[in-house]
Amino acid sequence: MEHYLEKAKVLTEALPYIQRFHGKTIVIKYGGSAMREQGLRQNFAQDIVLMKFVGLRPVVVHGGGPQIGSTLERIGKETRFVRGMRVTDAETMEVVEMVLAGKLNKDLVQLIHSQGGKAIGLSGKDGNLIEARKMVLKEGEGAGEDLGFVGEVAKVNADIIRDMDRDAYVPVVAPVGIGKDGETYNINADLVASRLAVALKADKLILLTDVTGILDGEGKLVSSVPLSELEGLVTRGEVTGGMIPKVRCCSEAVSQGVRKAHIIDGRVEHSVLLEVFTDGGVGTEIFSD
Amino acid sequence: MEHYLEKAKVLTEALPYIQRFHGKTIVIKYGGSAMREQGLRQNFAQDIVLMKFVGLRPVVVHGGGPQIGSTLERIGKETRFVRGMRVTDAETMEVVEMVLAGKLNKDLVQLIHSQGGKAIGLSGKDGNLIEARKMVLKEGEGAGEDLGFVGEVAKVNADIIRDMDRDAYVPVVAPVGIGKDGETYNINADLVASRLAVALKADKLILLTDVTGILDGEGKLVSSVPLSELEGLVTRGEVTGGMIPKVRCCSEAVSQGVRKAHIIDGRVEHSVLLEVFTDGGVGTEIFSD
Amino acid sequence: MEHYLEKAKVLTEALPYIQRFHGKTIVIKYGGSAMREQGLRQNFAQDIVLMKFVGLRPVVVHGGGPQIGSTLERIGKETRFVRGMRVTDAETMEVVEMVLAGKLNKDLVQLIHSQGGKAIGLSGKDGNLIEARKMVLKEGEGAGEDLGFVGEVAKVNADIIRDMDRDAYVPVVAPVGIGKDGETYNINADLVASRLAVALKADKLILLTDVTGILDGEGKLVSSVPLSELEGLVTRGEVTGGMIPKVRCCSEAVSQGVRKAHIIDGRVEHSVLLEVFTDGGVGTEIFSD
Amino acid sequence: MEHYLEKAKVLTEALPYIQRFHGKTIVIKYGGSAMREQGLRQNFAQDIVLMKFVGLRPVVVHGGGPQIGSTLERIGKETRFVRGMRVTDAETMEVVEMVLAGKLNKDLVQLIHSQGGKAIGLSGKDGNLIEARKMVLKEGEGAGEDLGFVGEVAKVNADIIRDMDRDAYVPVVAPVGIGKDGETYNINADLVASRLAVALKADKLILLTDVTGILDGEGKLVSSVPLSELEGLVTRGEVTGGMIPKVRCCSEAVSQGVRKAHIIDGRVEHSVLLEVFTDGGVGTEIFSD
Amino acid sequence: MEHYLEKAKVLTEALPYIQRFHGKTIVIKYGGSAMREQGLRQNFAQDIVLMKFVGLRPVVVHGGGPQIGSTLERIGKETRFVRGMRVTDAETMEVVEMVLAGKLNKDLVQLIHSQGGKAIGLSGKDGNLIEARKMVLKEGEGAGEDLGFVGEVAKVNADIIRDMDRDAYVPVVAPVGIGKDGETYNINADLVASRLAVALKADKLILLTDVTGILDGEGKLVSSVPLSELEGLVTRGEVTGGMIPKVRCCSEAVSQGVRKAHIIDGRVEHSVLLEVFTDGGVGTEIFSD
Amino acid sequence: MEHYLEKAKVLTEALPYIQRFHGKTIVIKYGGSAMREQGLRQNFAQDIVLMKFVGLRPVVVHGGGPQIGSTLERIGKETRFVRGMRVTDAETMEVVEMVLAGKLNKDLVQLIHSQGGKAIGLSGKDGNLIEARKMVLKEGEGAGEDLGFVGEVAKVNADIIRDMDRDAYVPVVAPVGIGKDGETYNINADLVASRLAVALKADKLILLTDVTGILDGEGKLVSSVPLSELEGLVTRGEVTGGMIPKVRCCSEAVSQGVRKAHIIDGRVEHSVLLEVFTDGGVGTEIFSD
Repeated sequence: MEHYLEKAKVLTEALPYIQRFHGKTIVIKYGGSAMREQGLRQNFAQDIVLMKFVGLRPVVVHGGGPQIGSTLERIGKETRFVRGMRVTDAETMEVVEMVLAGKLNKDLVQLIHSQGGKAIGLSGKDGNLIEARKMVLKEGEGAGEDLGFVGEVAKVNADIIRDMDRDAYVPVVAPVGIGKDGETYNINADLVASRLAVALKADKLILLTDVTGILDGEGKLVSSVPLSELEGLVTRGEVTGGMIPKVRCCSEAVSQGVRKAHIIDGRVEHSVLLEVFTDGGVGTEIFSD
Repeated sequence: MEHYLEKAKVLTEALPYIQRFHGKTIVIKYGGSAMREQGLRQNFAQDIVLMKFVGLRPVVVHGGGPQIGSTLERIGKETRFVRGMRVTDAETMEVVEMVLAGKLNKDLVQLIHSQGGKAIGLSGKDGNLIEARKMVLKEGEGAGEDLGFVGEVAKVNADIIRDMDRDAYVPVVAPVGIGKDGETYNINADLVASRLAVALKADKLILLTDVTGILDGEGKLVSSVPLSELEGLVTRGEVTGGMIPKVRCCSEAVSQGVRKAHIIDGRVEHSVLLEVFTDGGVGTEIFSD
Repeated sequence: MEHYLEKAKVLTEALPYIQRFHGKTIVIKYGGSAMREQGLRQNFAQDIVLMKFVGLRPVVVHGGGPQIGSTLERIGKETRFVRGMRVTDAETMEVVEMVLAGKLNKDLVQLIHSQGGKAIGLSGKDGNLIEARKMVLKEGEGAGEDLGFVGEVAKVNADIIRDMDRDAYVPVVAPVGIGKDGETYNINADLVASRLAVALKADKLILLTDVTGILDGEGKLVSSVPLSELEGLVTRGEVTGGMIPKVRCCSEAVSQGVRKAHIIDGRVEHSVLLEVFTDGGVGTEIFSD
Repeated sequence: MEHYLEKAKVLTEALPYIQRFHGKTIVIKYGGSAMREQGLRQNFAQDIVLMKFVGLRPVVVHGGGPQIGSTLERIGKETRFVRGMRVTDAETMEVVEMVLAGKLNKDLVQLIHSQGGKAIGLSGKDGNLIEARKMVLKEGEGAGEDLGFVGEVAKVNADIIRDMDRDAYVPVVAPVGIGKDGETYNINADLVASRLAVALKADKLILLTDVTGILDGEGKLVSSVPLSELEGLVTRGEVTGGMIPKVRCCSEAVSQGVRKAHIIDGRVEHSVLLEVFTDGGVGTEIFSD
Repeated sequence: MEHYLEKAKVLTEALPYIQRFHGKTIVIKYGGSAMREQGLRQNFAQDIVLMKFVGLRPVVVHGGGPQIGSTLERIGKETRFVRGMRVTDAETMEVVEMVLAGKLNKDLVQLIHSQGGKAIGLSGKDGNLIEARKMVLKEGEGAGEDLGFVGEVAKVNADIIRDMDRDAYVPVVAPVGIGKDGETYNINADLVASRLAVALKADKLILLTDVTGILDGEGKLVSSVPLSELEGLVTRGEVTGGMIPKVRCCSEAVSQGVRKAHIIDGRVEHSVLLEVFTDGGVGTEIFSD
Repeated sequence: MEHYLEKAKVLTEALPYIQRFHGKTIVIKYGGSAMREQGLRQNFAQDIVLMKFVGLRPVVVHGGGPQIGSTLERIGKETRFVRGMRVTDAETMEVVEMVLAGKLNKDLVQLIHSQGGKAIGLSGKDGNLIEARKMVLKEGEGAGEDLGFVGEVAKVNADIIRDMDRDAYVPVVAPVGIGKDGETYNINADLVASRLAVALKADKLILLTDVTGILDGEGKLVSSVPLSELEGLVTRGEVTGGMIPKVRCCSEAVSQGVRKAHIIDGRVEHSVLLEVFTDGGVGTEIFSD
């Protein structure tokens, strides 16, 4: 009995969060361990389905790193990286697209169905969702190098998401963009999630990562940071490496109207749910001040 | 952290229940301790608001026993009971209606608002919701006695509930009926809840009581009983006294299409939520076989 | 035959009024003799139902004076008045609410049904319709006295009226408000009607009274007065006593967008209908100039 | 004052009729004196507009007799009649159509607008409203004669009326039909009204005539007659001449589901309104028994 | 086979035009040879129905010149012309209205039906579509002469067209207007088309004429002319006679938001279709610059 | 000019076909040369977009043969065939899915966009569109062999197609199915198209092939064959080899309510358009008799 009462209390504790986010759009970048480990995968799908059923509108953008690498390996295709981005020739792009839109996207759709939800997998080509342009490195490391079909988001046409029955389906988006002349681009999933959050006037952007969040100079988690101080963290060297572009994605989203952005630890079970439904967020939140 | 993980698990455990009852109507008879004790009152309102937000459609019918008695006392009006029913003359009926529709009904509406929900209080007169007729005792104890304005449900006109924005408001119903010639009737709240559940094609009827549920011959809780065995419990004398009419209300609802009826212990905190969202129901369920 | 022709002519004379008010909201404060005398009560309900059927949208706010007094008497509760307002302690407030929301409100709902209409009774608690605050007398007679739970309208949340099927139901409102901390307030019905008229962008506010209307210095009925001259009537002492707050209610409504306000004689049969459907208005109209 | 009270009473007396016919379709054949005399014309348009505003759905079918004759005369075209029907050659048909659809139809539309209503004029060609076939006299007087473009209703396609905003416009129909090969037919307006009433599942069919109604053997008005006795009136010779086809139109409509058919005296002012809104119907009603 | 391939190519060549005009309103003034010659009439109706089916919204305004003349002749009524306009006394107006609204309008409706479309014939009286005022010649030839019931468009009330199911019916409009006091006016059909195009925010206005289009000083077709140069053509005398008012109609439409206006040669088979669906427009287009 | 007239005639000749198929669903299996050759690919996309714009509802199911083979080759994976079906182990299935859902599906979506249409690419996993089960060869060649993840359609859940804005998007379906336990199946595209046509109550099923159609014993094209004679063609050996399963797909669709099925020659330019919009169908049609 005691046991059940405990449960009831947890459910009612979630009530204010459910009320606050009712009907709100939340864009989640899905990747890293949460995408690789079976247990975390199921947790994630449960979290998404639960959010959907209690009235939120989750939109998932997935990445694809390791699986792309292993497929390229299988066909004996070598690639090199510039500033962490895979230089993508036409043959590589074909593989990247097949893995992202044909394999990972549909796997995630199926995973959501297996937990009782309904999902629809989209690539940036469907309904012209993501118009892209070639990324050009103007300065710094690798400046002037041709990255091939690595793209940036030129424009988001979110009609295809708004036109579907949003109370029924979870949109699952592969980060593939379409260029002016019909060429296909590989785009960083964090970037796509950030731009989609802005286009959909999302309430939250959540980036699932494999780190604890933003750490301060002493290695302690910064659990909340206003937009105005974010750039300072980069300048002062507290935020470094792969975290910098993530911080920039969050900054861009929040400065364009998304209420909050979160960098959370995808290695923690149900981290998305905890972020949304409890006070115990598991990472760093960036908010407008 | 551990603590939060526990919470996430409880939330995801509720997922199958949320899915199962999504968009379903659940009629709850509210009364007894759950209506009197401050803590239980708040628990109940939280439960209702949570159900509403996660997509269920609760409808509440409240009783009013003790408060009616104390108000009658205050004006020095004595009443007597026949088979547990208050003999109701015109003056008494006026008091009963004022307490039910003017005091308790509006208090409950306000309580639901205080927990973040939206409610609308109705009596059986609003939109002719409950048409009533005089109850006549044909046989047994008190046969032939004039009970005054004690009524039975003649017809439920549930349009007023169907016409309102059911995704926004929780209907809260006072068990007052309207006779053919405009006279007001006092009707047992269990009866009203049962008939309303049938009219709204509800998925569940839940009667909150101050007992553990139906007990078997050895005083042990019967947690589940098929419709076909219900009458036997009465005949064999296992169900007695005030439980008999409650059992009959359940039986009538289930035999007319309500999927399940529950007699639960309102003295347990969050008993409604436990009943709906966990396996650990706190009482007896009656189901069609 | 002649007789019938006469009828046809009356019906067609109403045509321009029906056209003018089609789809318009009209808020009516109901009280006084029209609420007490059986014949006038039926007339009033007929008028409301007729208005509804020919395409207008009447909203009724009722008062409750004498019935509250007699109920308080019955329980031996004495009350005193300050500037015509009943000083209302908690016990009194309970009685006031029960009489207004439980008795008079539902009686009126039933009366409208008896004439073939459909009504829904609301108190200011339903859907948080009327948010209230304590009335404080700052100056003049009784300044500084604690009036208890006598309230003013802080805010009107008219969604509950706009959300319902307004072509089907007549909203009937009891003048009870809800305070910030959930406390109940007794509010003057003229005030509630005036504020509701503004919130619903009503075309007309009609106050039923037991006087002929506003009289001039020589005791003659002023049948029409522009907003700009209204205050002068008070200053010059032509409007006195209980008529002053009524005049202020009208003035506030008209200055905030209600097209016309009317103080009419509820002792005249069908006075509401005459006011709306003929040239022969029975009282004083206040209009914006 | 007295005078106004009288008015209010008349208005409320109309209430039960307004309630009964709310949202109901009433098809009215307009012709005879009511179409020729200026006063009656205005009365008729007022009646139609009033019916529309109080929630009924009038549909008007007009005839055209005298105006057709005078126009034919003007162009020196002689015609002859067989059993009261004008033998219609191609040239005559052209004139008939122009007068009906181009002159009388639009005049009536304008008349309704002049009283504050909105109307749309249709001929049987618009949206293929009335499909026609050639009328053939098989027996009796004139059997075998070629009546030219005199037609019968083959089929009614009432979609064009159902598709328009029926709460806004009064459909006004000219009795012109369209044959299989695109030829135009002149059809008796009573027939068109009767068939239209059936197609629109009308509540009432009203035929305006220039007689008092059906008279019995002694010349007294029969105010009400069941369908079953109607044919007997013809057989016994009580109904004769031009009244026979009118009686047949009523009989056909009522036997196919129209609740009541009325043959009323269009020479009486506001006769339509009297028929619908008072007990004092001015003619004969035929009802199903 | 070759033959069919040719067909497929033509169809796909139309694709960009279909895309461009999808859902767009196109107002067409129909008159001249296209209205008189049987083959051209059928072509025109086919063009309209095809446009409708591929998703455009054609609205047709027809003229009536010759038929009006021949009918007036038949009744021996002589008329004279001032600046090309028929001086219209009351008797003439009656004939004009009958021919336009009763004969030509319904013939065209029927013609569209015969090609598989659905049409509804309207005059300017239906739903008060065209409010008119008397035309007064202030200067130039005939200044001060009373033209009788020759009118100008005072106001277009296009609700009747917007309220109908525009995906189903083609509105066919007779150029008859209604004056303030209910009097009927004969209005030039080009003028009506131009004003209707503005009121409906049409994409195109097309005037069918019996000339090749606007010719330059050397008699060569001007296939395209910007609004800014249009007046110059008149001033320089390149546009003369009956073409001047047509050019003014186009000019007025384009300057008030219609994207393009076309003066095309109705003597060419399927000229409307060619104008809309191919590059080979057959006349002069006027566009905003 | 002559040239344009020719065009106008072709367009109007298409009118009856456009009328007949307005709002109708047409399921097209896309494959073979039409999918490989650049010119034919563009033709096909134009045809689809044109059909969409003129009001039809095309749904495309694509195959993938050669591209799957070349990708498998690239990774050095050999496969063998049983009765023309590729034996599909887990690794092969992964490649098949990536090529179908990730590459070909999105290429086709992009192709349709490049012609001005809007498309959305779906696999059988999206919204559980195609539930599959393992195909088992019970008799004949290869009976008892394990084909691996070669599937049959168990159930079509077409809601995802019905829920989308069907007037805006062309659904493009990859023939991948989802098994009960979440396993992925490779299904023959003809089969998927046939079942989808039934589920969507399509008017037509069109199979694009690389042959002329069904040939009779003398090698001449059978342009039309009733359902009842279809099986005879197989029995008599006139239909052989790879044509047999195609004939069976058609037969099944037509016997379950699809009006007509067509086996057409995809090597002919615009063959789909010709089939739908002219009399000159290019292949064999099967119809119910």
